[in-house]
Amino acid sequence: MQVDLLIQARWIIPVEPASVVYDNYSLAIDGGRIVDLLPSDLALRKYRPRVLEIRDRHALIPGLINCHTHAAMTLLRGFADDLPLMDWLQNHIWPAEQQWASEAFVRDGTDLAIAEMLRGGTTCFNDMYFFPEITAQQALQHGIRANIGLIVFDFPTLWAENADAYLAKGLALHEQLRHESLLSLSFAPHAPYTVSDAPLSRALTYADEMNLTLHMHVHETAHEVEQQLANTGQTPLQRLRDLGLLTSSFIAVHMTQMSAEQIAEFAETGAHIVHCPESNLKLASGFCPVADCLAAGINVALGTDGAASNNDLDMLGEMRTAALLAKGVAGDASAVSAWTALEMATINGAKALGLDTEIGSLLLGKAADVVAIDLSAPETQPCFHPVAQIVYAAGRHQVSDAWVAGKPLLSQRRLTTLDLDELTQRVEQWRQRMNAGPS
Amino acid sequence: MQVDLLIQARWIIPVEPASVVYDNYSLAIDGGRIVDLLPSDLALRKYRPRVLEIRDRHALIPGLINCHTHAAMTLLRGFADDLPLMDWLQNHIWPAEQQWASEAFVRDGTDLAIAEMLRGGTTCFNDMYFFPEITAQQALQHGIRANIGLIVFDFPTLWAENADAYLAKGLALHEQLRHESLLSLSFAPHAPYTVSDAPLSRALTYADEMNLTLHMHVHETAHEVEQQLANTGQTPLQRLRDLGLLTSSFIAVHMTQMSAEQIAEFAETGAHIVHCPESNLKLASGFCPVADCLAAGINVALGTDGAASNNDLDMLGEMRTAALLAKGVAGDASAVSAWTALEMATINGAKALGLDTEIGSLLLGKAADVVAIDLSAPETQPCFHPVAQIVYAAGRHQVSDAWVAGKPLLSQRRLTTLDLDELTQRVEQWRQRMNAGPS
Repeated sequence: MQVDLLIQARWIIPVEPASVVYDNYSLAIDGGRIVDLLPSDLALRKYRPRVLEIRDRHALIPGLINCHTHAAMTLLRGFADDLPLMDWLQNHIWPAEQQWASEAFVRDGTDLAIAEMLRGGTTCFNDMYFFPEITAQQALQHGIRANIGLIVFDFPTLWAENADAYLAKGLALHEQLRHESLLSLSFAPHAPYTVSDAPLSRALTYADEMNLTLHMHVHETAHEVEQQLANTGQTPLQRLRDLGLLTSSFIAVHMTQMSAEQIAEFAETGAHIVHCPESNLKLASGFCPVADCLAAGINVALGTDGAASNNDLDMLGEMRTAALLAKGVAGDASAVSAWTALEMATINGAKALGLDTEIGSLLLGKAADVVAIDLSAPETQPCFHPVAQIVYAAGRHQVSDAWVAGKPLLSQRRLTTLDLDELTQRVEQWRQRMNAGPS
Repeated sequence: MQVDLLIQARWIIPVEPASVVYDNYSLAIDGGRIVDLLPSDLALRKYRPRVLEIRDRHALIPGLINCHTHAAMTLLRGFADDLPLMDWLQNHIWPAEQQWASEAFVRDGTDLAIAEMLRGGTTCFNDMYFFPEITAQQALQHGIRANIGLIVFDFPTLWAENADAYLAKGLALHEQLRHESLLSLSFAPHAPYTVSDAPLSRALTYADEMNLTLHMHVHETAHEVEQQLANTGQTPLQRLRDLGLLTSSFIAVHMTQMSAEQIAEFAETGAHIVHCPESNLKLASGFCPVADCLAAGINVALGTDGAASNNDLDMLGEMRTAALLAKGVAGDASAVSAWTALEMATINGAKALGLDTEIGSLLLGKAADVVAIDLSAPETQPCFHPVAQIVYAAGRHQVSDAWVAGKPLLSQRRLTTLDLDELTQRVEQWRQRMNAGPS
């Protein structure tokens, strides 16, 4: 039988079914979808592939899903670090964004992010930033899968002047992009403390009508929770619940502040958490009780946050930090195993985005979003368990290939849809411009 | 003037003086030592180098010092993970060591560790393991700098039968190695709960006589402290102080359990702490209060611990985790800056080992232990601050070169003293043997 692509691998880790590693297996791909998963010695008898890729020192995993980022902020990587949170935001990041965050900034920053993500095995990202139409356009241009946040604030930014304008622009963008197979959309009200009740309710109404998810920073810091409690007598979480937002279409990012009771209540709503461990550490935001959330049955996905507070978009590193930190926070060395971390970075992200019938595992019929990781380096030897090596030892440079819907976007370390030299020049021009300061 | 080697770099970060970055500078090396540090446009007028290395997208930093590891345990990388601490130790690691930790195991595991460390920019490691004579021999063979721990236990292991025998073997090894310029030695009593007073006192006496340091796991877990308090009414730290061990020659590894009072008392002794953040997280040992220790004036160095509890020997990653985790633990986003993390991994390690007149910074006269890191990858662009990129964004594969005493051990990613293919075969044989189980 003819197929578009056959990938022979040393190991295939499909994530679904859970905790399975297939030795010397092949993945057959046709029309952008996974059509078979079978022992390599059978595969070449059964299939005549148009392209045969042999990855005999590699593990194949589902493409990683970065479930919360601000892609364009790669241009602010290392712009300001090691500062108290409010000093960092108010005196460095916000003024820089006010000065620079134009359409061109979002285009070039998103391109840098896409290059970085593909080189690190991320095949889908969930974004929230200004000029989402540019982010969407760059994702389409380079062939990566993305969930585009239709951002909402109460106050003016470079993209829109008030909540009504954000929502109107969001609706128009949804109309324009709704048929793109690689894109999905969320309404993305920024945070409880930046969006008031009326636009939140409208975003919820639209999301329900159009079957979109909602993507929001929630309970990122103790300060946020304390302040709203003091002002209104309610936690942000209580307010969101009363407004009806906490459903299985809601993606709550960060959630470092949760009591046992709040965890139990949140679990009942079916809403999702995106854990961003490195950003939470770097900004000293607090510790998300990941092991307790998972034990309560909450779907916890993983995100890098933007590069200004991380400072990378490295999902292999984020899995590792998530697995390590959860153990420390839980006081239990068996908390968040390597397997669990891999699920958080794949199928759990797909579930949060409502895309788990399409991506997040290597089940037959799903889109062929696949990543190959070379485990032959001394840093990942001896290889007793490939999943342990991927989560606890591999570096992202060991990602050799990334396919999205069967199309190779990273091929033996080479990006196929981005010109890295030309991109590097654009990025360097931003550095020079920003170093020179406001014009 | 003729010199052995001139390295032209985009940036040179000498660590001493603190917080200085030299743009477009060169490092002149002769007789294994740093003889000059000067602008590149002057360097080629002043010096005729036998070898000229141009690293024009790179930062030069002092070689990283991994201040606590068990090198040979690379062969147990990923052998057992995600288990409760006592299950992991008693049912997996200790039986595997009992079965496998022979001279050949230590030779091959140490070679793998040296390959991994050099490829990640580590030029000096502080080791504690069985068969230290083999670790020393492999370090000498491959040209890396090492501080060899003369391990001491009360009870028999594969290396010696009782405390007297460990000490006697240690003394003999000291006699044999004392004149090796790349090696230094510590007495390394394993931990308070595995070594009784008499051998501790003898180790202290010998260390004083021979001007050696002492290297010991201390206050790794709450359990360790509680148990000794319950048994003797003293914390391990009090006991070590009463025995006279806490001096500026003492290296206390882990120290996750410290009250404010203990921090102040420890600071007065001049003893050193080695922080192993990833191991402490992975084993759920607790959180070392690094920011408080540094504020109290304690010299805090950095180590990876062994690969079984990390699972890598990646000092770039360890700096990153140290800087991130310290912020979370202190609740202060300005705690442990990128600069501080770099000092912990270089000059602070040199101070702990008593080698700070020899290594740890790029001061004139010091040994030329130098590392080059290529910052041109998209993952470390735009480059506003090279130190932020090194600590928060660079991967260890961006380390291009490592020199020890002026000798290139890693040259444009190629190991010069290790045959990686042959080593990989030896490591694979261990995997097969260990997978087959006890013979």
